[in-house]
Amino acid sequence: MTLLEICQKAKASRGVLVTAETEQKNKALLACADALVQNYEEILKANAVDMEHGKEKGMPAGLLDRLLLTKERIEAMALGLRQIAELPDPIGRVLESFERPNGLHIEKVSVPIGVIGIIYESRPNVTADAFALCFKSGNVVILKGGSDAIESNKAITAVLQKGLVSSGFPKDVVQLIAETSREVTTEFMKQKEYVDLLIPRGGAGLIRSVVENSQIPVIETGTGNCHIYVDKDADLQKALPILVNAKTQRIGVCNAAESLVVHKDVKDAFLPMAYAALKEKNVELRGDAAAKAILPDIVDATEEDYGKEYLDLILSVKTVDSLEEAISHINRYNTGHSEAIITENPDAAQKFQKEVDAACVYVNASTRFTDGFEFGFGGEIGISTQKMHARGPMGLRELTSYKYCITGNGQVRG
Amino acid sequence: MTLLEICQKAKASRGVLVTAETEQKNKALLACADALVQNYEEILKANAVDMEHGKEKGMPAGLLDRLLLTKERIEAMALGLRQIAELPDPIGRVLESFERPNGLHIEKVSVPIGVIGIIYESRPNVTADAFALCFKSGNVVILKGGSDAIESNKAITAVLQKGLVSSGFPKDVVQLIAETSREVTTEFMKQKEYVDLLIPRGGAGLIRSVVENSQIPVIETGTGNCHIYVDKDADLQKALPILVNAKTQRIGVCNAAESLVVHKDVKDAFLPMAYAALKEKNVELRGDAAAKAILPDIVDATEEDYGKEYLDLILSVKTVDSLEEAISHINRYNTGHSEAIITENPDAAQKFQKEVDAACVYVNASTRFTDGFEFGFGGEIGISTQKMHARGPMGLRELTSYKYCITGNGQVRG
Repeated sequence: MTLLEICQKAKASRGVLVTAETEQKNKALLACADALVQNYEEILKANAVDMEHGKEKGMPAGLLDRLLLTKERIEAMALGLRQIAELPDPIGRVLESFERPNGLHIEKVSVPIGVIGIIYESRPNVTADAFALCFKSGNVVILKGGSDAIESNKAITAVLQKGLVSSGFPKDVVQLIAETSREVTTEFMKQKEYVDLLIPRGGAGLIRSVVENSQIPVIETGTGNCHIYVDKDADLQKALPILVNAKTQRIGVCNAAESLVVHKDVKDAFLPMAYAALKEKNVELRGDAAAKAILPDIVDATEEDYGKEYLDLILSVKTVDSLEEAISHINRYNTGHSEAIITENPDAAQKFQKEVDAACVYVNASTRFTDGFEFGFGGEIGISTQKMHARGPMGLRELTSYKYCITGNGQVRG
Repeated sequence: MTLLEICQKAKASRGVLVTAETEQKNKALLACADALVQNYEEILKANAVDMEHGKEKGMPAGLLDRLLLTKERIEAMALGLRQIAELPDPIGRVLESFERPNGLHIEKVSVPIGVIGIIYESRPNVTADAFALCFKSGNVVILKGGSDAIESNKAITAVLQKGLVSSGFPKDVVQLIAETSREVTTEFMKQKEYVDLLIPRGGAGLIRSVVENSQIPVIETGTGNCHIYVDKDADLQKALPILVNAKTQRIGVCNAAESLVVHKDVKDAFLPMAYAALKEKNVELRGDAAAKAILPDIVDATEEDYGKEYLDLILSVKTVDSLEEAISHINRYNTGHSEAIITENPDAAQKFQKEVDAACVYVNASTRFTDGFEFGFGGEIGISTQKMHARGPMGLRELTSYKYCITGNGQVRG
């Protein structure tokens, strides 16, 4: 099947999801979950081919682990689908309702976006997960996964389609682009006649490439250069575990802290504590002159360090003379993801939350909470770091649009 | 000033608008309105230069009229600013507020988008209007108007900046790109580091070019291939004035009807009525074979006709055998703008509203109501025909984003 045929079939099938009842959608999700578990051997066989190719290519152990499927991991995928089936349907909610003086009754109602394209790297679990979120929110999905996972993705998609067809849905509501060349990806990003939204999931390079080349609207997700700012009025006993948690609880994720900003009034007290606690976790610090004056052992921070999402056991340290300087430093270097202030001063907290330009701004808590599950959304397709459509964790509701339904009795415009 | 400098100054000044109080913003809008009226002679002088160039170039009368400013038109611009000052501030609204089991308190709060670029044609009134909507919603705006209005736009922008500075705002919160080459426009569309959103206002060609070339998120506005569907259960006495209003009340606008779809059961009764009423307004009909069988005088409709936004005294006519066929015809040819069904049957009305894919779906009313003022939004920056971020009329609220403000007491992720 050509890319164009895939896109046309996707668009042609979106009407089915617009009219599907919640109950039908949930039954289909459960059928897909069952199909995954029942057909796990087939999926594992396909995954074994990908794993062999990956080893031949010399893929690093971390990537191989992301690629690997096991019976347990397939069961976890199925569980994910069952959990999404239990979430409230985001479609058909009356968001607003008002009457105009001329008698027109206007309702703003949530509707599916239409056809969503997901471009992602070689993580086969995304295949099932992205499908389930899109499907529950009434969207047809076209998946374009990384070439290293192609056999696994084909097998998973085929199984999901089996589950869908058994529940009365056309298989075209989830499709995989089987060809994995760069040309196909470029061509895919031009299909604005058929695809309403592209969501790239993966590293900064992938996301930049999609943003720069897509003619379809894109939601940028994921890059997180997150800061913990320890204010002069911070409770340092609160600051320390928050910093350690945000930096080290999981290092390769977008909501992990990459930089410590510390007010000059507390730097002498806080930096040695932070150094000791982070050293235990093998974190390397890179600081400015004022930080080095207190911690002579640490590396010099360069301009580049402050702009960097390390995703590693490294933390940059910046000292500031004021809250204003902290805000302005963060607004210069951050990626619009998650930022935190540690302070007991409510005015400082409020000013920080108002003026820091990021999706999620924390007072006295770890940035690691920026997550669809932690926010209670029951799942997430990604964390938006841009300001259009949705910002921060994107759950089912963020995968919807709206329409206005206007009811009159013969009104014409004068 | 170079384009890059303009963009950098815009981004640098957005913090001022994030913290500006409603009262300050309103005062500045009133000062700008006063400045427009006080400096009208200067603006008219600049406009005279544009008008002369336009006449020399042989611009058509319609475009010259759009370009022309008069004292009255400048007063109308000023009134527009005063009206926007009176609207509620869309910033700082708590959209949602919830508590997580771990004690984190999460507020979702409306915030400005940041820096908005408006690319528009030679309509100097857009300069003041777009500025006012962006400013009130806390956004810095960079204007890129058509070259034919450049002197008028420069004069209006300078006057607005005077009003802003007199109210304590930096003039950089509204800037005009004075260079009007295509190269500058192309370069502008790449400034995603500084500009958060581009809104093109103008004809289909301009909008397509921005969508295809921009690396900045774009909201598509304006193109409207709108249909009036007269159902088998229509009250034809309601249908006729709605059709005539939607087609002829103003022909050059995006919410005007371009196509009549009529059910076979009522075509014999309705088409002659429609023909007679529209003939009086000099509307040319172009129909399919079944329509021509009833109205032999009319022109044959081609495939192209059904896909066309005429913006003229022309209406295509399509007969259908069923409501389903009407919906599928409309979903094939429409541009996602405004669609109407005329019916007394509530099931048909509901099905049409649910299944027709458009920003505004009407029952028994003219499509001409799709408008920020008619919806009670107090103004509009445009009508979005896409599904991301905002759909339909975009007022002040649609020019906002949101952030999550999370307050804890030392929470870390386990």
